[in-house]
Amino acid sequence: MTHIEQAKRNRITRDMRAVARDEHVDAVAVAAGIAAGTIVIPRNKNRRSIKAVGVGKGLRTKVNANIGTSPDHISLADEKEKLEAALAAGADALMDLSIGGNLKKIRRMILDNCPVPLGTVPIYQAACETVSRGSRITAMDAEKLFDVIEQQADEGVDFMTVHCGVTRDAVSLLERQGRLVGIVSRGGSFLARWMRKNKKENPLYEQYDRLLKIAAKYEVTLSLGDGLRPGCIHDASDGAQIAELSILGELVLRARAAGVQTMVEGPGHVPLDQVQANVVLAKRLIHDAPLYLLGPLVTDIAAGYDHITGAIGGALAASAGADFLCYVTPAEHLHLPGPDDVYTGVIASRIAGHAADIVKNVSGARVRDYNMSKYRKALDWDRQEKFALDPRRFAAERKKMISQAAGACTMCGEFCAMKEDR
Amino acid sequence: MTHIEQAKRNRITRDMRAVARDEHVDAVAVAAGIAAGTIVIPRNKNRRSIKAVGVGKGLRTKVNANIGTSPDHISLADEKEKLEAALAAGADALMDLSIGGNLKKIRRMILDNCPVPLGTVPIYQAACETVSRGSRITAMDAEKLFDVIEQQADEGVDFMTVHCGVTRDAVSLLERQGRLVGIVSRGGSFLARWMRKNKKENPLYEQYDRLLKIAAKYEVTLSLGDGLRPGCIHDASDGAQIAELSILGELVLRARAAGVQTMVEGPGHVPLDQVQANVVLAKRLIHDAPLYLLGPLVTDIAAGYDHITGAIGGALAASAGADFLCYVTPAEHLHLPGPDDVYTGVIASRIAGHAADIVKNVSGARVRDYNMSKYRKALDWDRQEKFALDPRRFAAERKKMISQAAGACTMCGEFCAMKEDR
Repeated sequence: MTHIEQAKRNRITRDMRAVARDEHVDAVAVAAGIAAGTIVIPRNKNRRSIKAVGVGKGLRTKVNANIGTSPDHISLADEKEKLEAALAAGADALMDLSIGGNLKKIRRMILDNCPVPLGTVPIYQAACETVSRGSRITAMDAEKLFDVIEQQADEGVDFMTVHCGVTRDAVSLLERQGRLVGIVSRGGSFLARWMRKNKKENPLYEQYDRLLKIAAKYEVTLSLGDGLRPGCIHDASDGAQIAELSILGELVLRARAAGVQTMVEGPGHVPLDQVQANVVLAKRLIHDAPLYLLGPLVTDIAAGYDHITGAIGGALAASAGADFLCYVTPAEHLHLPGPDDVYTGVIASRIAGHAADIVKNVSGARVRDYNMSKYRKALDWDRQEKFALDPRRFAAERKKMISQAAGACTMCGEFCAMKEDR
Repeated sequence: MTHIEQAKRNRITRDMRAVARDEHVDAVAVAAGIAAGTIVIPRNKNRRSIKAVGVGKGLRTKVNANIGTSPDHISLADEKEKLEAALAAGADALMDLSIGGNLKKIRRMILDNCPVPLGTVPIYQAACETVSRGSRITAMDAEKLFDVIEQQADEGVDFMTVHCGVTRDAVSLLERQGRLVGIVSRGGSFLARWMRKNKKENPLYEQYDRLLKIAAKYEVTLSLGDGLRPGCIHDASDGAQIAELSILGELVLRARAAGVQTMVEGPGHVPLDQVQANVVLAKRLIHDAPLYLLGPLVTDIAAGYDHITGAIGGALAASAGADFLCYVTPAEHLHLPGPDDVYTGVIASRIAGHAADIVKNVSGARVRDYNMSKYRKALDWDRQEKFALDPRRFAAERKKMISQAAGACTMCGEFCAMKEDR
């Protein structure tokens, strides 16, 4: 039985209990969320000893870090370093988005070293292997795609991005209505080209039941990808994006009926005044499934600092109901991220998630700020460190300059407003 | 005649014309904003050759960088370096918040090297000089405070933070209602202690007309300080904060009547769901005067990364109507910032301001994103660099890793979604 099927029978599994304990919420509420499809706990049946991480309504906003190779940079050691940086920064989940080198070997290393849920985008492997055989991407065999999905499921991948909503209709709508930057999702653009060239429907849509069977068999959580997400402010919230989202809503219901845990991915680049509307609309269309956002980036021009741009959008989106934030690193739009970019990206998203959790009344969020401020007022630096979002950075920065004035920092020294009357 | 008096007579000054040109708006609208008090152009009569910078309704959101010494770190060279870092990052204004060393000498250096409006907090000098004479802060003479204000005005300071709303009533309210971290504004806490010890009203409130006379004489823009701003999420939007804001609203009207340009400062630490309400309420209470915000920080726990926390709050606040963002650096709550902190802080606030300007329909904001994305789609990296918020960083990051695939970056290489069909 899948998680959903057990929850529907009021069985509270070990994972549900672990999530409840971790989040200081009621296990019955977690089970009810799983049964209703508003919460997922991504964990493949073949995965042992990973942390049970709940994503969805009433739970802490989670942060995902993307790692993986590209054709230009293939290094197992570097991927290991990025994995460790992501975990050190507090990532709740990882995705291996490798598209260069021996994908299976890289994934094995990551699976073996990743104590949190791991996600992939199987079409990358199907596309890469097609290209490495000397064929064009558009020559990819649909059977190949399902083989890869089953292979990765068997290996233990916990959640998979599948761009099932990139249908011929949705892409045709996109082409008719026009866009400034077109399709920016790698998976989405593979599929659009494949459909155009082969004059066939998206196999992930057409054979969705087949996909659901594999997912149910291995307890893989589906992450319904936003292949038509906007790649710039100008294209945000357009017809194609919303058409895809609406299809994904249908697919959520079919997945629930098949006992398959499902979340839905969202944009992308969205101007600040459309962020809340995007989240509210998405939540409606996807029947309150966990919403997994990339960014959103509230401006296109801040390459080099898109972790900040993404934190602005992410905080706003999560406060409006988004459940899962995919980090954006300072390297976004410029190059493959390195370990420092990964670390910074996770922290920025965690700030966004926590700022949202405060106002979502997530259990334990507000009290952490309360304690931090209590000890700030008391000039108790050791205790502040404990409540800091990144205690390591807190300590390192603190050590840079120590004040002569007892207890104070070098910003104000003896003139510290926190100190008693002089 | 002051700026306001000239604007009221429909005279469009050189500064108003310069602001209009810079912002691509109508000079008549700028003059009308100055006359109504919804726009200020901070520039002391004794200051030559600085850029005319407009702050307020319909204009680009501006960013201020605080520099200055502390008792623990006094170095003219370092202040010069911070000044240069702030300008290189694109700060629209600077404040010298020095509280260590020869304040006059430091200020002279900064004034001589600062091509944008410079602000100060005169009570710092009055307090420091009182303490350096061996007295307690509370022994400060009110006359001394006005002497310092006039001295700094004569030197050419363009805008001054004056905590006129920290009245005995407001402080008494704060004490009655209680707070987790009390008063965190340096100026606010000086004044609260001074009033308590001397059993006298705040001289900046009691002798406000005297202050207005000096401001009018030198065309100093008053920045009515938020001495009772909340220093943590828990204290946000409390009675004391709003009481002070309400008093500042009265003082805005008196300043306008005296022909003195005025803006009002705002919090501080504010949870995400109260940011918009704070801005809307503030704008109402201060009669649409330009609103100058510090942050706001949407969580207390992210010390080491408060430039990100501040960018989240700042973007949201500016989109709701805040006009001027005071940066927060990564060093906030930890130590006096260095040049790198200053640079990063300015950039983070500029991202916030720009994200807001897109949705405030500020002239030229949206088209910049459009152009950036147009050239991103075209894989034209040189033109992207021109439209990037920080072209220097864009170029440096880009150079770190160059893809083998023509035009692409190392994130996707040959699999770049922006590239044409393969």
